[in-house]
Amino acid sequence: MDSLLLEFWFDKELLDDSSKLDNFLCDLSKQLKSNFNNLSVLTEKKSDAKQCGFVMLYQMDSSCTILVQGTGQGLLTIDVHAFSEKTWFNEETVQELRNKIFEIKSIKQRKTMEFKSLLPIKRGRSFTPYDTLSTGYLVEYDFDELVFDQDSPYQNVRILHSNQFGNCLVLDNDINLAESDLAYTVAITGDNKEDYTGKDVLVLGGGDGGILNYLRDKGPSMITMIDIDRVVIDAAKIHLRGICGDSMDEEEGKNYKIIVDDCVKHLVEFTKAGRKFDYVINDLTAIPISKEPVGSHWDFLRLILSLSLDVLKDDGKYFTQGNGSLNIRNLKMYEDVLKSLKTPVNFSKQTVGVPSYMELWVFYTLRKTKDTA
Amino acid sequence: MDSLLLEFWFDKELLDDSSKLDNFLCDLSKQLKSNFNNLSVLTEKKSDAKQCGFVMLYQMDSSCTILVQGTGQGLLTIDVHAFSEKTWFNEETVQELRNKIFEIKSIKQRKTMEFKSLLPIKRGRSFTPYDTLSTGYLVEYDFDELVFDQDSPYQNVRILHSNQFGNCLVLDNDINLAESDLAYTVAITGDNKEDYTGKDVLVLGGGDGGILNYLRDKGPSMITMIDIDRVVIDAAKIHLRGICGDSMDEEEGKNYKIIVDDCVKHLVEFTKAGRKFDYVINDLTAIPISKEPVGSHWDFLRLILSLSLDVLKDDGKYFTQGNGSLNIRNLKMYEDVLKSLKTPVNFSKQTVGVPSYMELWVFYTLRKTKDTA
Repeated sequence: MDSLLLEFWFDKELLDDSSKLDNFLCDLSKQLKSNFNNLSVLTEKKSDAKQCGFVMLYQMDSSCTILVQGTGQGLLTIDVHAFSEKTWFNEETVQELRNKIFEIKSIKQRKTMEFKSLLPIKRGRSFTPYDTLSTGYLVEYDFDELVFDQDSPYQNVRILHSNQFGNCLVLDNDINLAESDLAYTVAITGDNKEDYTGKDVLVLGGGDGGILNYLRDKGPSMITMIDIDRVVIDAAKIHLRGICGDSMDEEEGKNYKIIVDDCVKHLVEFTKAGRKFDYVINDLTAIPISKEPVGSHWDFLRLILSLSLDVLKDDGKYFTQGNGSLNIRNLKMYEDVLKSLKTPVNFSKQTVGVPSYMELWVFYTLRKTKDTA
Repeated sequence: MDSLLLEFWFDKELLDDSSKLDNFLCDLSKQLKSNFNNLSVLTEKKSDAKQCGFVMLYQMDSSCTILVQGTGQGLLTIDVHAFSEKTWFNEETVQELRNKIFEIKSIKQRKTMEFKSLLPIKRGRSFTPYDTLSTGYLVEYDFDELVFDQDSPYQNVRILHSNQFGNCLVLDNDINLAESDLAYTVAITGDNKEDYTGKDVLVLGGGDGGILNYLRDKGPSMITMIDIDRVVIDAAKIHLRGICGDSMDEEEGKNYKIIVDDCVKHLVEFTKAGRKFDYVINDLTAIPISKEPVGSHWDFLRLILSLSLDVLKDDGKYFTQGNGSLNIRNLKMYEDVLKSLKTPVNFSKQTVGVPSYMELWVFYTLRKTKDTA
């Protein structure tokens, strides 16, 4: 189904005078019928129009329905729901339809330029092209193929193809990383300003292989990557080579090791064994969006932070993603968490455009506070 | 009005059996009524359901209407149109409503994870937060204030405020540049790789002042900027200081001059007078999106190109924007135009993320071909 949502304004004085309203609705109906053949009326409700406005429902054989609504404020909406491809709209046909409505005498042109209409909302597809940004704003992707779709024991793992961003990894409906998103990997590994030569690096999560692939050639003595989900890793090896390259084809190499397991278990073991890292890169999840910094997501975040600092050398660095830059309140909650850690840290942050995220993203760098470390 | 558009799938065998269908619609109606008080039925049409599906229209006093549609393919859509703030939806209430519908026996959970629902489409506002990208994809901005709105003799000039992007210049409904978009200015002036010291620069358009402000301190002997629209310039001076700084407070300075006029006239005069520039920066309009490279926009583009090359030194550079990187066909049309110019040129291009554009944007650099220049 394609739903075309149009809006206009009409002279709301019409609602006070039933004969004027009748004329208006008659004109409107005429214009709609000139555009859609064999339109029949299913509902026409205009009683008490001054209070409640009016509503009309039309149907064109089995190929579309049209819902016309007028509010007491003078807003006229016309929603065309097309079931068949016969009623397909493009920019031109939408403009044509709008022009017909503008011919009606009581339709008002506004001072502020009428916004060009949106193309129809696409519904009932096998996957939706729409998503909401971290702040709830709507965005449409150019996804054209569902490349991979599997429920792992931990999450739903999908890979969708975009012409703009390449293949995109989507975990539980959340866009994780696309082949276009090197900017993410650069940011979460220290903005290309770190010297990884001879360093011992721990990567938490990172199952798409981006961080491993980026750091492998930068001379670290060892990269230990721990991701819980083999389904992600196996899908990435095939469908996300723009991210992981050949880095995960073997799960162990001269300077890296991939452990497929729960990272908490290993963090605890490392701590017991006294093993310390130069860098801990937390690529697990973004800062939770919530009213208060409570709940299982925040508990997990605090646990990982605390365990990570235990295995971080005193002069080491901890890198992690934050969230969308507009989530000021939740970023602040995170910073409050950082200020109240058992191991005192100082932090800096950087805001980066990650292409497929369609919004600016904040990344954090943590260091143990020198004088107390 | 806020329009919440939900979608579900139901067992389409229901459509073959009128008593099963009745039960299903009864369950559906019950769930809706448990969520919305005093719901009355305006329309219920389910005759010939197998062919045409079904459609029901409900109304809740004067505060909302609900259009329920079922298609022969088993798609169930529920559109809630709320006129009053009493019916406001947030992520939580939307999820609650969805969960109620999922309780109905014949609603099917799909293999592919159900996508989280979009928040309601916002309609009938004094300005819309939605726009379409250059490829027609839908996007929502966080616009919260109409800062400026005036029709100039040439176009509608609006400035909208975004928390993310700062003030945004919108010309004839098209986002031009936001205070966040230094990346645009850097790209269209040669990616920070040019030495402007002692150079004579011509800027066509650029009324937002971004290019002037960026280049003024880079040592050019002269920047001549020609923009037709004083309304843009005057609005930018007040509301877009994040772009133009104080560069346009005076319209003439020691190394720059702003001419408010039609640039074609001046290009012709420069040609006649034999005046040549080191750089011509065309900041007028993007490559037109059209099926064929014909029409007034393409004619204007060819005219500006030809006149610009006439006033460009043989070793000079011509910079301009292209369009969204996904408009491969129209970028190709432009490149074909470049290949057929009277003055032969070679060109290179660069793809850049301009924050407020929400898509990657292509920029071109043209040089006269050495051996024929």
